[in-house]
Amino acid sequence: MPDAIASTTLDNGLTVIVESLSELQSAAWSLLIPSGSAYDPPSASGTASALCDWITRGAGDRDSRAISTELDRFGIQSQTTVNVSHMIMSGACLSANLSPALGLVADYVQRPHLTDDEFEGAQAGVAHELQGLEDDPRQKVMLELVRRFYPSPWNQPPEGTLSDLENLTPDTTRQMFQRCVRPDRSILGIAGRVTLDEILPTIQQLFDGWEPGAEAAPTYGPRGETRAHLPAESTQTQIGIAYAGVPYRDPDYFAAWAAVSILSGGMSSRLFTEVREKRGLVYSVYATLSTLKDHGAVLCYAGTTNERAQETLDVLLTELARLSEGIDDAELQRAKASAKSSLVMAQESSSSRARSLARDWYHLGRATTVDEIQAAIERLTTATVLEFVRRHPPSPCSIVTIGPDTLNMPPAV
Amino acid sequence: MPDAIASTTLDNGLTVIVESLSELQSAAWSLLIPSGSAYDPPSASGTASALCDWITRGAGDRDSRAISTELDRFGIQSQTTVNVSHMIMSGACLSANLSPALGLVADYVQRPHLTDDEFEGAQAGVAHELQGLEDDPRQKVMLELVRRFYPSPWNQPPEGTLSDLENLTPDTTRQMFQRCVRPDRSILGIAGRVTLDEILPTIQQLFDGWEPGAEAAPTYGPRGETRAHLPAESTQTQIGIAYAGVPYRDPDYFAAWAAVSILSGGMSSRLFTEVREKRGLVYSVYATLSTLKDHGAVLCYAGTTNERAQETLDVLLTELARLSEGIDDAELQRAKASAKSSLVMAQESSSSRARSLARDWYHLGRATTVDEIQAAIERLTTATVLEFVRRHPPSPCSIVTIGPDTLNMPPAV
Repeated sequence: MPDAIASTTLDNGLTVIVESLSELQSAAWSLLIPSGSAYDPPSASGTASALCDWITRGAGDRDSRAISTELDRFGIQSQTTVNVSHMIMSGACLSANLSPALGLVADYVQRPHLTDDEFEGAQAGVAHELQGLEDDPRQKVMLELVRRFYPSPWNQPPEGTLSDLENLTPDTTRQMFQRCVRPDRSILGIAGRVTLDEILPTIQQLFDGWEPGAEAAPTYGPRGETRAHLPAESTQTQIGIAYAGVPYRDPDYFAAWAAVSILSGGMSSRLFTEVREKRGLVYSVYATLSTLKDHGAVLCYAGTTNERAQETLDVLLTELARLSEGIDDAELQRAKASAKSSLVMAQESSSSRARSLARDWYHLGRATTVDEIQAAIERLTTATVLEFVRRHPPSPCSIVTIGPDTLNMPPAV
Repeated sequence: MPDAIASTTLDNGLTVIVESLSELQSAAWSLLIPSGSAYDPPSASGTASALCDWITRGAGDRDSRAISTELDRFGIQSQTTVNVSHMIMSGACLSANLSPALGLVADYVQRPHLTDDEFEGAQAGVAHELQGLEDDPRQKVMLELVRRFYPSPWNQPPEGTLSDLENLTPDTTRQMFQRCVRPDRSILGIAGRVTLDEILPTIQQLFDGWEPGAEAAPTYGPRGETRAHLPAESTQTQIGIAYAGVPYRDPDYFAAWAAVSILSGGMSSRLFTEVREKRGLVYSVYATLSTLKDHGAVLCYAGTTNERAQETLDVLLTELARLSEGIDDAELQRAKASAKSSLVMAQESSSSRARSLARDWYHLGRATTVDEIQAAIERLTTATVLEFVRRHPPSPCSIVTIGPDTLNMPPAV
């Protein structure tokens, strides 16, 4: 780890990682709290999301209005969100205002008001998010795919389900705060014009009193069905396909990344040219890597007209299988060029680096530098990528479709 | 202008402005070509957008496939888009790859293939965009508002209209290329790890042969109706309100900016707290500044349930009028803090700076620095902002609604 990245762990277990980017004037943070949707109470999916919203409606000495004023007064751009593993509080500001920004975060995680009269608004916010997803079949098909592909409860959508949403109560939501919003296993990544030495006294003062006691991560349960069709009266058919990959911490992760990049990494990638350009089958097609701590997946999407849905599914499966037949060096070189470009530009953003620091620590137990990732990508050869693809074929896979008609799918293995 | 920004104009009229940001490794560009939707042929709205797509389907020695490969090979992130005034070709890459990136742009603007068999795909792309807008009432209401508020043809939506789209032909679209895609009045902004001295020889080699002859900008025609209701079977009502502001080049522009920021610049802004937080009337409400070269506007939006639509419109109009009654110093200070934060973070992005350089040159005929804008904002006082607001009241205004019921609107002036 170069001098620019430094880390420490407070007595209560909170890990702090700071990357000093002295050419910037901003600073950004990303706090991962092990309170994602996988920790939702049984039959109350969506609790983590409601909690995340509720927390920001009053904390410490400030009500909702005073928090808004504080954010605006210091020009703080702040976001709170939930994924399956974490509640994430992140943001950016001028580095001179980092202390008040972290002060707000410290209030959120230690002194939220969580009053009954603010709960309804938080619950309505989650319902509104969920309604938006339900209305967008492109997002819905991928959510339904993930729900079936990953082992429970690591398949739970952050937005919950319509049937569960009415089961949320202020009490079970407050209990989730007690169970999960704890410093042990929480990770605070910071990047920008700041050093660990400069900010550590502030962090200690703000977070030393945060009491540990986080619930253990849930174990992996059963997976769902591998073939599903959700009927819908629509002119378009949505197709989602998932198959096993490797998690981020796997030494082969970058080979998996290169394989997906060759499939879907740019306008010259295979899915874009074979499915969209040559055959004109779809408006949108992509493959992307997805990773939990211990499981990885390749998730593929295509949206097309009902008439062309069967052909699209067939071509998509053929392209996924064809990857093991061979990879051109030119394809790999393009994937590397695009990675290098993205990585360097990400390094120019404090927000992007803060996110990566926290995320890397969660998956790997350490920070990685952009140079280190670049070197790992540079080492890839067509032989190593091809060998990886052959060991991780796109079968068995899970398939979910949304549309008026069921499609012919290959038999579940 | 500090040493970091340098500009020149080629013999054919193309203006080049370069801001050197030596702490970055990337470089970004933004080329404004006076070929926006205001230049669309009569009854063929959408031509500029179809042309913009068509150009990228083959240019110079490369067909569509070869262009994609080139972009990926150099890790170039490239976008082409159209607004009412310009066709915009922009992108970012590692600064070492800026020459091949600009080489592609030079092919687009001088040697596009524009073959008949690629036209249908370009036309379908515009139709797909338009369909997306038609399906999204939140975007549609603002588009219909702008269409009525600004003088024609500076009110023409880039995506065209369903009725006009079938009138597009390869010939009239090729004629638009001949008429408008010309270097005189085109502006190339570049920002990142590069200097004008370094890149100028490349730019001269690539663009010196581009022949001038751009069509004059269209004059301003009549405005549309000031009250409109578009019936829709929906559970939500969309409300759009527009009133006159000042264009970007007006000395009072930053006072206009502060007024809108106080209305809608953050979570403690008036519209957010009065309409959304206190009364819970809407999911989304905002006001934003819009500017043509010679006209400016404040555009307001609110989306709400049908039941609360009338109250929302009434409260919105009240809040707009109430601004002239007084402004707190704390409100102005928050607007300034948020501007400072945004400006500094924008400076950390080569893409954001390239966009600003080109845009400022179009509006002002010169480049502005982030420091200069910051100083202009710092000089604002509640007295100057209030004086501006009183000289530019929210009346007369244009109002457009989409929903099942007409609302009571104040009489058109």
